Amino acid sequence: MKLCRVGELGKEKPALVDGNGRLRDISQVIGEIDGGVLERGDLGKLAGLDVEALPLIAGTPRYGVPIANVSKMVCIGLNYSDHAKEAGLAIPSEPIIFLKAPSAFCGPNDPTIIPVGSSKLDWEVELGVVIGKTTRNISEADAFSAVAGYCVVNDVSERAFQMQSSQWDKGKNCDSFGPIGPWFVTKDEVPDPQALAMKASVNGTVMQDGSTSTMIFDVRTLVSYVSRYMTLAPGDIIATGTPPGVGMGQKPEPIWLKAGDVVEIEIAGLGHQCQRVTARG
Amino acid sequence: MKLCRVGELGKEKPALVDGNGRLRDISQVIGEIDGGVLERGDLGKLAGLDVEALPLIAGTPRYGVPIANVSKMVCIGLNYSDHAKEAGLAIPSEPIIFLKAPSAFCGPNDPTIIPVGSSKLDWEVELGVVIGKTTRNISEADAFSAVAGYCVVNDVSERAFQMQSSQWDKGKNCDSFGPIGPWFVTKDEVPDPQALAMKASVNGTVMQDGSTSTMIFDVRTLVSYVSRYMTLAPGDIIATGTPPGVGMGQKPEPIWLKAGDVVEIEIAGLGHQCQRVTARG
Repeated sequence: MKLCRVGELGKEKPALVDGNGRLRDISQVIGEIDGGVLERGDLGKLAGLDVEALPLIAGTPRYGVPIANVSKMVCIGLNYSDHAKEAGLAIPSEPIIFLKAPSAFCGPNDPTIIPVGSSKLDWEVELGVVIGKTTRNISEADAFSAVAGYCVVNDVSERAFQMQSSQWDKGKNCDSFGPIGPWFVTKDEVPDPQALAMKASVNGTVMQDGSTSTMIFDVRTLVSYVSRYMTLAPGDIIATGTPPGVGMGQKPEPIWLKAGDVVEIEIAGLGHQCQRVTARG
Repeated sequence: MKLCRVGELGKEKPALVDGNGRLRDISQVIGEIDGGVLERGDLGKLAGLDVEALPLIAGTPRYGVPIANVSKMVCIGLNYSDHAKEAGLAIPSEPIIFLKAPSAFCGPNDPTIIPVGSSKLDWEVELGVVIGKTTRNISEADAFSAVAGYCVVNDVSERAFQMQSSQWDKGKNCDSFGPIGPWFVTKDEVPDPQALAMKASVNGTVMQDGSTSTMIFDVRTLVSYVSRYMTLAPGDIIATGTPPGVGMGQKPEPIWLKAGDVVEIEIAGLGHQCQRVTARG
Protein backbone atom coordinates (compact mmCIF):
# COMPACT_ATOMS: atom_id res chain seq x y z
CA MET A 1 0.00 0.00 0.00
CA LYS A 2 0.93 3.59 -0.60
CA LEU A 3 -0.34 5.62 2.31
CA CYS A 4 -0.24 9.35 2.79
CA ARG A 5 -1.72 12.25 4.67
CA VAL A 6 -3.23 15.08 2.67
CA GLY A 7 -4.59 18.49 3.52
CA GLU A 8 -3.45 21.75 5.01
CA LEU A 9 -0.73 21.70 7.66
CA GLY A 10 -2.13 20.36 10.91
CA LYS A 11 -5.38 19.22 9.24
CA GLU A 12 -4.08 16.31 7.17
CA LYS A 13 -6.31 13.28 6.67
CA PRO A 14 -5.09 9.76 5.98
CA ALA A 15 -5.42 8.49 2.44
CA LEU A 16 -4.23 5.71 0.21
CA VAL A 17 -3.24 5.70 -3.42
CA ASP A 18 -5.42 3.38 -5.45
CA GLY A 19 -4.33 1.28 -8.42
CA ASN A 20 -4.99 4.20 -10.75
CA GLY A 21 -2.95 6.67 -8.70
CA ARG A 22 -6.01 8.38 -7.28
CA LEU A 23 -6.24 9.37 -3.62
CA ARG A 24 -8.86 7.62 -1.48
CA ASP A 25 -9.94 8.90 1.93
CA ILE A 26 -9.36 6.27 4.64
CA SER A 27 -10.13 8.49 7.62
CA GLN A 28 -13.27 6.44 8.33
CA VAL A 29 -11.19 3.24 8.49
CA ILE A 30 -8.17 4.43 10.45
CA GLY A 31 -8.30 7.79 12.14
CA GLU A 32 -4.65 8.56 11.56
CA ILE A 33 -1.44 7.11 10.18
CA ASP A 34 0.93 7.16 13.12
CA GLY A 35 3.19 5.01 15.23
CA GLY A 36 0.32 3.71 17.32
CA VAL A 37 -1.51 2.45 14.24
CA LEU A 38 1.66 0.76 13.04
CA GLU A 39 2.41 -0.87 16.38
CA ARG A 40 -1.15 -2.12 16.86
CA GLY A 41 -1.22 -3.55 13.36
CA ASP A 42 -4.24 -1.42 12.49
CA LEU A 43 -3.10 -1.14 8.90
CA GLY A 44 -4.53 -4.65 8.62
CA LYS A 45 -7.97 -3.02 8.61
CA LEU A 46 -7.13 -1.75 5.14
CA ALA A 47 -6.26 -5.16 3.75
CA GLY A 48 -9.72 -6.51 3.03
CA LEU A 49 -11.27 -3.26 1.87
CA ASP A 50 -12.90 -2.64 -1.47
CA VAL A 51 -10.64 0.26 -2.42
CA GLU A 52 -12.99 1.37 -5.19
CA ALA A 53 -15.66 1.95 -2.57
CA LEU A 54 -13.55 4.39 -0.58
CA PRO A 55 -14.30 8.09 -1.11
CA LEU A 56 -12.18 9.74 -3.78
CA ILE A 57 -10.30 12.86 -2.73
CA ALA A 58 -10.91 15.63 -5.22
CA GLY A 59 -8.36 18.02 -6.62
CA THR A 60 -4.67 18.13 -5.86
CA PRO A 61 -4.35 18.53 -2.12
CA ARG A 62 -1.11 19.25 -0.29
CA TYR A 63 0.77 16.22 0.95
CA GLY A 64 1.82 16.31 4.59
CA VAL A 65 4.35 14.12 6.35
CA PRO A 66 2.90 10.65 5.61
CA ILE A 67 3.18 9.54 9.24
CA ALA A 68 1.90 11.74 12.03
CA ASN A 69 3.92 12.55 15.13
CA VAL A 70 7.25 11.07 14.05
CA SER A 71 9.37 11.38 17.19
CA LYS A 72 12.80 11.32 15.55
CA MET A 73 14.66 10.86 12.32
CA VAL A 74 17.94 9.01 12.75
CA CYS A 75 20.21 10.01 9.90
CA ILE A 76 23.21 8.06 8.65
CA GLY A 77 26.14 10.10 7.38
CA LEU A 78 28.41 9.22 4.49
CA ASN A 79 26.70 5.91 3.80
CA TYR A 80 27.52 5.80 0.09
CA SER A 81 31.18 5.38 -0.61
CA ASP A 82 31.19 7.75 -3.58
CA HIS A 83 29.45 10.44 -1.54
CA ALA A 84 32.05 10.17 1.20
CA LYS A 85 34.65 10.66 -1.48
CA GLU A 86 32.96 13.76 -2.93
CA ALA A 87 32.67 15.18 0.59
CA GLY A 88 36.41 14.64 1.02
CA LEU A 89 35.82 12.43 4.05
CA ALA A 90 36.94 8.92 4.92
CA ILE A 91 34.62 5.94 4.35
CA PRO A 92 33.27 5.22 7.82
CA SER A 93 34.07 1.93 9.55
CA GLU A 94 30.75 2.09 11.42
CA PRO A 95 27.57 4.02 10.64
CA ILE A 96 27.71 7.70 11.59
CA ILE A 97 24.55 8.75 13.40
CA PHE A 98 23.06 12.20 13.68
CA LEU A 99 19.50 13.36 14.30
CA LYS A 100 16.75 15.46 12.82
CA ALA A 101 14.11 16.70 15.25
CA PRO A 102 10.41 17.08 14.41
CA SER A 103 10.70 20.84 13.89
CA ALA A 104 12.62 20.08 10.68
CA PHE A 105 9.97 17.82 9.15
CA CYS A 106 7.63 18.98 6.40
CA GLY A 107 5.56 17.72 3.53
CA PRO A 108 7.31 16.53 0.36
CA ASN A 109 6.34 19.54 -1.73
CA ASP A 110 6.47 22.23 0.93
CA PRO A 111 8.93 25.03 0.18
CA THR A 112 12.50 24.79 1.41
CA ILE A 113 12.87 27.87 3.57
CA ILE A 114 16.25 29.58 3.40
CA PRO A 115 17.41 30.09 6.99
CA VAL A 116 18.76 33.47 8.05
CA GLY A 117 22.48 33.59 7.32
CA SER A 118 22.44 30.68 4.89
CA SER A 119 25.14 30.57 2.23
CA LYS A 120 25.51 26.87 1.36
CA LEU A 121 22.09 25.27 1.02
CA ASP A 122 22.18 21.73 -0.36
CA TRP A 123 20.03 18.67 -1.16
CA GLU A 124 20.38 14.93 -0.43
CA VAL A 125 17.95 12.30 -1.74
CA GLU A 126 17.67 9.47 0.77
CA LEU A 127 15.78 6.26 1.35
CA GLY A 128 13.78 6.56 4.58
CA VAL A 129 13.08 3.39 6.53
CA VAL A 130 9.88 3.58 8.56
CA ILE A 131 9.97 1.65 11.83
CA GLY A 132 6.84 -0.34 12.64
CA LYS A 133 7.21 -1.30 16.29
CA THR A 134 9.12 -0.44 19.43
CA THR A 135 12.58 -1.80 18.68
CA ARG A 136 15.76 -2.13 20.68
CA ASN A 137 18.79 -4.38 20.31
CA ILE A 138 17.33 -6.21 17.35
CA SER A 139 19.57 -8.60 15.43
CA GLU A 140 20.37 -8.13 11.76
CA ALA A 141 18.56 -11.39 11.07
CA ASP A 142 15.36 -10.02 12.61
CA ALA A 143 15.78 -6.42 11.51
CA PHE A 144 13.13 -6.46 8.77
CA SER A 145 10.49 -7.47 11.32
CA ALA A 146 10.93 -3.95 12.73
CA VAL A 147 10.44 -2.26 9.34
CA ALA A 148 6.94 -1.12 8.34
CA GLY A 149 7.91 0.42 5.03
CA TYR A 150 9.81 3.10 3.17
CA CYS A 151 9.58 6.70 2.09
CA VAL A 152 11.53 9.38 0.27
CA VAL A 153 13.47 11.85 2.42
CA ASN A 154 15.36 14.94 1.37
CA ASP A 155 18.09 15.47 3.96
CA VAL A 156 18.29 19.20 3.25
CA SER A 157 21.55 20.57 4.61
CA GLU A 158 23.18 23.93 5.15
CA ARG A 159 26.87 23.12 4.76
CA ALA A 160 28.25 26.26 6.37
CA PHE A 161 26.12 25.61 9.46
CA GLN A 162 26.91 21.89 9.32
CA MET A 163 30.66 22.40 9.22
CA GLN A 164 30.89 25.46 11.50
CA SER A 165 31.52 23.22 14.51
CA SER A 166 32.32 19.54 14.79
CA GLN A 167 28.63 18.68 15.12
CA TRP A 168 26.43 18.53 12.03
CA ASP A 169 22.97 18.82 13.64
CA LYS A 170 22.88 22.62 13.39
CA GLY A 171 23.08 22.43 9.61
CA LYS A 172 20.60 19.57 9.38
CA ASN A 173 17.73 20.83 11.56
CA CYS A 174 16.54 24.12 10.16
CA ASP A 175 12.79 24.34 9.59
CA SER A 176 11.77 22.57 6.36
CA PHE A 177 15.04 20.59 6.19
CA GLY A 178 13.19 17.26 6.40
CA PRO A 179 10.68 16.78 3.57
CA ILE A 180 9.16 13.30 3.93
CA GLY A 181 6.94 11.46 1.47
CA PRO A 182 4.73 11.79 -0.53
CA TRP A 183 3.95 8.24 0.52
CA PHE A 184 4.71 5.77 3.22
CA VAL A 185 4.98 2.60 1.11
CA THR A 186 4.48 -0.61 3.06
CA LYS A 187 7.35 -3.04 2.82
CA ASP A 188 5.37 -5.69 0.91
CA GLU A 189 5.63 -3.37 -2.09
CA VAL A 190 9.41 -3.06 -1.78
CA PRO A 191 10.83 -6.57 -2.13
CA ASP A 192 14.44 -5.33 -2.25
CA PRO A 193 15.21 -1.96 -0.63
CA GLN A 194 18.80 -2.30 -1.88
CA ALA A 195 17.77 -2.09 -5.54
CA LEU A 196 16.00 1.25 -5.80
CA ALA A 197 16.95 3.90 -8.32
CA MET A 198 17.15 7.34 -6.76
CA LYS A 199 17.46 10.73 -8.37
CA ALA A 200 17.70 14.41 -7.53
CA SER A 201 17.51 17.30 -9.93
CA VAL A 202 17.77 21.06 -9.56
CA ASN A 203 15.90 23.26 -12.02
CA GLY A 204 15.53 20.23 -14.27
CA THR A 205 19.21 19.23 -14.31
CA VAL A 206 19.88 15.78 -12.85
CA MET A 207 22.39 16.08 -10.04
CA GLN A 208 22.12 12.74 -8.23
CA ASP A 209 21.46 9.56 -10.18
CA GLY A 210 22.20 6.65 -7.91
CA SER A 211 20.89 3.47 -6.42
CA THR A 212 20.40 2.13 -2.93
CA SER A 213 22.57 -0.77 -4.11
CA THR A 214 25.71 1.25 -3.34
CA MET A 215 25.03 1.82 0.34
CA ILE A 216 27.97 0.95 2.58
CA PHE A 217 25.71 -0.23 5.43
CA ASP A 218 22.46 -1.72 4.16
CA VAL A 219 18.98 -1.35 5.67
CA ARG A 220 19.20 -4.55 7.66
CA THR A 221 22.52 -3.53 9.18
CA LEU A 222 21.37 0.01 9.97
CA VAL A 223 18.14 -0.97 11.72
CA SER A 224 20.04 -3.40 13.91
CA TYR A 225 22.90 -1.00 14.54
CA VAL A 226 20.78 2.01 15.50
CA SER A 227 18.62 -0.14 17.79
CA ARG A 228 21.70 -1.02 19.83
CA TYR A 229 22.10 2.64 20.78
CA MET A 230 18.54 3.88 21.19
CA THR A 231 15.02 2.53 21.18
CA LEU A 232 13.32 3.08 17.87
CA ALA A 233 9.67 4.02 18.23
CA PRO A 234 7.03 3.04 15.69
CA GLY A 235 6.89 5.79 13.09
CA ASP A 236 10.53 6.74 13.59
CA ILE A 237 12.47 7.06 10.36
CA ILE A 238 16.04 6.08 9.57
CA ALA A 239 17.39 8.23 6.72
CA THR A 240 19.99 6.00 5.17
CA GLY A 241 22.37 8.42 3.50
CA THR A 242 22.77 9.89 0.06
CA PRO A 243 24.57 8.90 -3.14
CA PRO A 244 27.00 11.25 -4.92
CA GLY A 245 25.86 14.43 -6.61
CA VAL A 246 25.00 16.84 -3.83
CA GLY A 247 25.73 20.51 -4.35
CA MET A 248 28.82 20.37 -2.15
CA GLY A 249 30.36 17.80 -4.51
CA GLN A 250 29.82 19.55 -7.83
CA LYS A 251 32.87 20.31 -9.99
CA PRO A 252 34.59 22.59 -10.67
CA GLU A 253 32.71 24.52 -8.00
CA PRO A 254 30.02 23.56 -5.51
CA ILE A 255 26.47 24.55 -6.40
CA TRP A 256 24.33 26.02 -3.63
CA LEU A 257 20.59 26.44 -3.77
CA LYS A 258 19.16 29.94 -4.06
CA ALA A 259 15.69 31.44 -3.86
CA GLY A 260 13.51 30.28 -6.74
CA ASP A 261 15.40 27.06 -7.40
CA VAL A 262 13.27 23.94 -7.76
CA VAL A 263 14.55 20.69 -6.28
CA GLU A 264 12.97 17.43 -7.41
CA ILE A 265 13.87 14.11 -5.87
CA GLU A 266 12.46 10.63 -6.36
CA ILE A 267 13.06 7.01 -5.54
CA ALA A 268 11.65 4.26 -7.77
CA GLY A 269 8.30 3.12 -6.41
CA LEU A 270 8.34 5.54 -3.49
CA GLY A 271 7.26 8.72 -5.22
CA HIS A 272 8.49 12.16 -6.12
CA GLN A 273 9.12 15.34 -4.16
CA CYS A 274 9.34 18.92 -5.44
CA GLN A 275 10.48 21.82 -3.29
CA ARG A 276 10.80 25.45 -4.28
CA VAL A 277 13.57 27.25 -2.42
CA THR A 278 12.04 30.26 -0.73
CA ALA A 279 13.02 33.11 1.54
CA ARG A 280 11.06 33.05 4.78
CA GLY A 281 7.92 35.16 4.29
CA MET B 1 5.80 27.54 40.87
CA LYS B 2 7.43 24.17 40.99
CA LEU B 3 5.48 21.87 38.69
CA CYS B 4 5.95 18.18 38.12
CA ARG B 5 4.32 15.04 36.82
CA VAL B 6 4.11 12.08 39.15
CA GLY B 7 3.05 8.47 38.77
CA GLU B 8 4.04 5.39 36.87
CA LEU B 9 5.53 5.77 33.39
CA GLY B 10 2.82 6.78 30.96
CA LYS B 11 0.32 7.48 33.74
CA GLU B 12 1.82 10.61 35.25
CA LYS B 13 -0.48 13.28 36.64
CA PRO B 14 0.37 16.96 36.94
CA ALA B 15 1.20 18.27 40.38
CA LEU B 16 2.69 21.25 42.09
CA VAL B 17 4.96 21.54 45.07
CA ASP B 18 3.35 23.57 47.85
CA GLY B 19 5.12 25.88 50.27
CA ASN B 20 5.83 22.98 52.57
CA GLY B 21 7.32 20.77 49.85
CA ARG B 22 4.24 18.55 49.61
CA LEU B 23 2.82 17.47 46.27
CA ARG B 24 -0.63 18.73 45.32
CA ASP B 25 -2.70 17.22 42.51
CA ILE B 26 -3.55 19.81 39.86
CA SER B 27 -5.06 17.44 37.33
CA GLN B 28 -8.50 18.96 37.88
CA VAL B 29 -7.13 22.42 37.06
CA ILE B 30 -4.90 21.65 34.10
CA GLY B 31 -5.15 18.27 32.47
CA GLU B 32 -1.49 18.04 31.64
CA ILE B 33 1.75 20.02 31.76
CA ASP B 34 2.83 20.23 28.15
CA GLY B 35 3.78 22.61 25.41
CA GLY B 36 0.19 23.43 24.58
CA VAL B 37 -0.51 24.49 28.15
CA LEU B 38 2.58 26.67 28.13
CA GLU B 39 1.77 28.29 24.80
CA ARG B 40 -1.86 28.99 25.72
CA GLY B 41 -0.82 30.50 29.04
CA ASP B 42 -2.94 27.97 30.90
CA LEU B 43 -0.53 27.95 33.81
CA GLY B 44 -2.25 31.22 34.70
CA LYS B 45 -5.15 29.10 35.92
CA LEU B 46 -2.93 28.07 38.80
CA ALA B 47 -2.12 31.61 39.87
CA GLY B 48 -5.21 32.44 41.85
CA LEU B 49 -5.73 29.03 43.40
CA ASP B 50 -5.89 28.27 47.09
CA VAL B 51 -3.02 25.79 47.07
CA GLU B 52 -3.98 24.41 50.46
CA ALA B 53 -7.33 23.36 49.02
CA LEU B 54 -5.75 21.19 46.31
CA PRO B 55 -5.70 17.44 46.98
CA LEU B 56 -2.51 16.21 48.60
CA ILE B 57 -0.71 13.38 46.85
CA ALA B 58 0.08 10.64 49.31
CA GLY B 59 3.31 8.68 49.60
CA THR B 60 6.41 9.11 47.51
CA PRO B 61 5.38 8.65 43.91
CA ARG B 62 7.77 8.36 41.01
CA TYR B 63 8.58 11.60 39.22
CA GLY B 64 8.20 11.56 35.45
CA VAL B 65 9.53 14.06 32.95
CA PRO B 66 7.96 17.27 34.28
CA ILE B 67 6.71 18.32 30.85
CA ALA B 68 4.81 15.87 28.68
CA ASN B 69 5.64 15.29 25.00
CA VAL B 70 8.86 17.29 24.82
CA SER B 71 9.68 17.21 21.11
CA LYS B 72 13.42 17.83 21.35
CA MET B 73 16.26 18.66 23.67
CA VAL B 74 18.83 20.94 22.09
CA CYS B 75 22.12 20.39 23.86
CA ILE B 76 25.03 22.80 23.95
CA GLY B 77 28.49 21.24 23.97
CA LEU B 78 31.53 22.53 25.87
CA ASN B 79 29.72 25.58 27.24
CA TYR B 80 31.83 25.92 30.38
CA SER B 81 35.39 26.92 29.67
CA ASP B 82 36.87 24.66 32.36
CA HIS B 83 34.91 21.66 31.04
CA ALA B 84 36.22 22.25 27.53
CA LYS B 85 39.68 22.23 29.05
CA GLU B 86 39.14 18.95 30.91
CA ALA B 87 37.78 17.41 27.71
CA GLY B 88 40.95 18.48 25.93
CA LEU B 89 38.94 20.49 23.40
CA ALA B 90 39.13 24.10 22.30
CA ILE B 91 36.79 26.70 23.77
CA PRO B 92 34.15 27.11 21.08
CA SER B 93 33.75 30.41 19.27
CA GLU B 94 30.04 29.71 18.76
CA PRO B 95 27.68 27.38 20.62
CA ILE B 96 28.03 23.74 19.58
CA ILE B 97 24.60 22.18 19.04
CA PHE B 98 23.65 18.53 19.23
CA LEU B 99 20.33 16.84 19.96
CA LYS B 100 18.67 14.39 22.30
CA ALA B 101 15.53 12.72 21.00
CA PRO B 102 12.51 11.80 23.15
CA SER B 103 13.55 8.15 23.41
CA ALA B 104 16.39 9.27 25.69
CA PHE B 105 14.18 11.17 28.15
CA CYS B 106 13.22 9.74 31.54
CA GLY B 107 12.21 10.75 35.03
CA PRO B 108 14.82 12.31 37.33
CA ASN B 109 15.17 9.23 39.55
CA ASP B 110 14.70 6.50 36.95
CA PRO B 111 17.66 4.15 36.64
CA THR B 112 20.44 4.88 34.19
CA ILE B 113 20.43 1.82 31.95
CA ILE B 114 23.85 0.65 30.80
CA PRO B 115 23.64 0.21 27.02
CA VAL B 116 24.98 -2.95 25.44
CA GLY B 117 28.68 -2.52 24.73
CA SER B 118 29.12 0.43 27.07
CA SER B 119 32.56 1.03 28.56
CA LYS B 120 32.68 4.76 29.33
CA LEU B 121 29.43 5.85 30.95
CA ASP B 122 29.49 9.39 32.31
CA TRP B 123 27.37 12.12 33.95
CA GLU B 124 26.85 15.83 33.25
CA VAL B 125 24.73 18.10 35.44
CA GLU B 126 23.11 20.79 33.30
CA LEU B 127 20.68 23.67 33.56
CA GLY B 128 17.70 22.98 31.30
CA VAL B 129 15.86 25.95 29.85
CA VAL B 130 12.20 25.23 29.14
CA ILE B 131 10.78 27.07 26.15
CA GLY B 132 7.32 28.54 26.62
CA LYS B 133 6.16 29.43 23.13
CA THR B 134 6.86 28.78 19.48
CA THR B 135 10.10 30.67 18.92
CA ARG B 136 12.22 31.41 15.90
CA ASN B 137 14.78 34.10 15.17
CA ILE B 138 14.29 35.78 18.52
CA SER B 139 16.70 38.53 19.52
CA GLU B 140 18.87 38.29 22.62
CA ALA B 141 16.98 41.26 24.03
CA ASP B 142 13.69 39.39 23.75
CA ALA B 143 15.01 35.90 24.52
CA PHE B 144 13.60 35.65 28.04
CA SER B 145 10.09 36.17 26.69
CA ALA B 146 10.48 32.70 25.12
CA VAL B 147 11.54 31.07 28.40
CA ALA B 148 8.89 29.45 30.59
CA GLY B 149 11.24 28.18 33.26
CA TYR B 150 14.06 25.86 34.19
CA CYS B 151 14.80 22.29 35.18
CA VAL B 152 17.66 19.98 36.06
CA VAL B 153 19.00 17.77 33.26
CA ASN B 154 21.59 15.02 33.43
CA ASP B 155 23.21 14.83 30.00
CA VAL B 156 24.21 11.20 30.49
CA SER B 157 26.90 10.29 27.97
CA GLU B 158 28.70 7.19 26.77
CA ARG B 159 32.09 8.58 25.77
CA ALA B 160 33.22 5.62 23.68
CA PHE B 161 30.02 5.86 21.62
CA GLN B 162 30.25 9.66 21.57
CA MET B 163 33.80 9.72 20.25
CA GLN B 164 33.61 6.67 17.97
CA SER B 165 32.74 8.87 15.01
CA SER B 166 32.81 12.63 14.54
CA GLN B 167 29.18 12.91 15.64
CA TRP B 168 28.29 12.83 19.34
CA ASP B 169 24.57 11.97 19.11
CA LYS B 170 25.15 8.20 19.28
CA GLY B 171 26.72 8.54 22.72
CA LYS B 172 24.09 11.00 23.93
CA ASN B 173 20.85 9.27 22.95
CA CYS B 174 20.76 5.87 24.60
CA ASP B 175 17.58 5.12 26.51
CA SER B 176 17.58 6.82 29.96
CA PHE B 177 20.34 9.27 28.95
CA GLY B 178 18.07 12.26 29.52
CA PRO B 179 16.76 12.46 33.11
CA ILE B 180 14.71 15.66 33.43
CA GLY B 181 13.32 17.18 36.61
CA PRO B 182 12.10 16.62 39.25
CA TRP B 183 10.47 19.98 38.67
CA PHE B 184 9.78 22.46 35.98
CA VAL B 185 10.34 25.69 37.91
CA THR B 186 8.67 28.72 36.40
CA LYS B 187 11.03 31.58 35.63
CA ASP B 188 9.54 33.94 38.19
CA GLU B 189 11.24 31.78 40.83
CA VAL B 190 14.63 32.03 39.12
CA PRO B 191 15.54 35.70 39.00
CA ASP B 192 19.08 35.04 37.75
CA PRO B 193 19.68 31.77 35.86
CA GLN B 194 23.38 32.68 35.69
CA ALA B 195 23.86 32.43 39.45
CA LEU B 196 22.81 28.88 40.27
CA ALA B 197 25.03 26.47 42.16
CA MET B 198 25.14 23.03 40.54
CA LYS B 199 26.53 19.79 41.84
CA ALA B 200 26.97 16.16 40.85
CA SER B 201 28.12 13.35 43.08
CA VAL B 202 28.79 9.66 42.52
CA ASN B 203 28.33 7.28 45.44
CA GLY B 204 28.38 10.29 47.74
CA THR B 205 31.62 11.83 46.45
CA VAL B 206 31.18 15.29 44.95
CA MET B 207 32.46 15.30 41.37
CA GLN B 208 31.02 18.48 39.89
CA ASP B 209 30.69 21.60 42.05
CA GLY B 210 30.08 24.50 39.75
CA SER B 211 27.86 27.43 38.95
CA THR B 212 25.92 28.57 35.94
CA SER B 213 27.90 31.80 36.32
CA THR B 214 30.79 30.24 34.37
CA MET B 215 28.88 29.47 31.18
CA ILE B 216 30.61 30.70 28.04
CA PHE B 217 27.30 31.44 26.26
CA ASP B 218 24.56 32.47 28.69
CA VAL B 219 20.87 31.55 28.59
CA ARG B 220 19.86 34.68 26.74
CA THR B 221 22.48 34.12 24.08
CA LEU B 222 21.66 30.44 23.67
CA VAL B 223 17.91 30.87 23.27
CA SER B 224 18.46 33.50 20.60
CA TYR B 225 21.21 31.51 18.89
CA VAL B 226 19.36 28.21 18.70
CA SER B 227 16.21 29.94 17.46
CA ARG B 228 18.13 31.22 14.43
CA TYR B 229 18.69 27.64 13.30
CA MET B 230 15.46 25.86 14.19
CA THR B 231 12.05 26.67 15.56
CA LEU B 232 11.81 25.97 19.27
CA ALA B 233 8.46 24.50 20.26
CA PRO B 234 6.84 25.13 23.64
CA GLY B 235 8.11 22.47 26.01
CA ASP B 236 11.39 22.06 24.15
CA ILE B 237 14.42 22.14 26.42
CA ILE B 238 17.84 23.66 25.84
CA ALA B 239 20.46 21.81 27.91
CA THR B 240 23.08 24.46 28.45
CA GLY B 241 26.24 22.45 29.04
CA THR B 242 28.11 21.18 32.05
CA PRO B 243 30.82 22.51 34.37
CA PRO B 244 34.07 20.61 35.08
CA GLY B 245 34.12 17.33 36.96
CA VAL B 246 32.65 14.75 34.62
CA GLY B 247 34.08 11.24 34.72
CA MET B 248 36.04 11.80 31.53
CA GLY B 249 37.95 14.62 33.20
CA GLN B 250 38.96 12.90 36.44
CA LYS B 251 42.69 12.66 37.29
CA PRO B 252 44.87 10.69 37.24
CA GLU B 253 42.43 8.42 35.38
CA PRO B 254 38.89 8.90 34.10
CA ILE B 255 36.11 7.42 36.23
CA TRP B 256 33.35 5.57 34.42
CA LEU B 257 30.02 4.60 35.93
CA LYS B 258 29.35 0.93 36.63
CA ALA B 259 26.32 -1.06 37.70
CA GLY B 260 25.22 -0.17 41.20
CA ASP B 261 26.71 3.31 41.21
CA VAL B 262 24.43 6.08 42.42
CA VAL B 263 24.55 9.45 40.68
CA GLU B 264 23.02 12.46 42.39
CA ILE B 265 22.79 15.84 40.75
CA GLU B 266 21.18 19.07 41.80
CA ILE B 267 20.88 22.72 40.95
CA ALA B 268 20.02 25.29 43.61
CA GLY B 269 16.27 25.88 43.66
CA LEU B 270 15.56 23.42 40.85
CA GLY B 271 15.70 20.16 42.77
CA HIS B 272 17.67 16.97 43.05
CA GLN B 273 17.99 13.85 40.87
CA CYS B 274 19.20 10.40 41.91
CA GLN B 275 19.89 7.62 39.39
CA ARG B 276 21.10 4.13 40.08
CA VAL B 277 23.20 2.71 37.28
CA THR B 278 21.62 -0.54 36.18
CA ALA B 279 22.10 -3.27 33.63
CA ARG B 280 19.09 -3.61 31.36
CA GLY B 281 16.70 -6.09 32.92
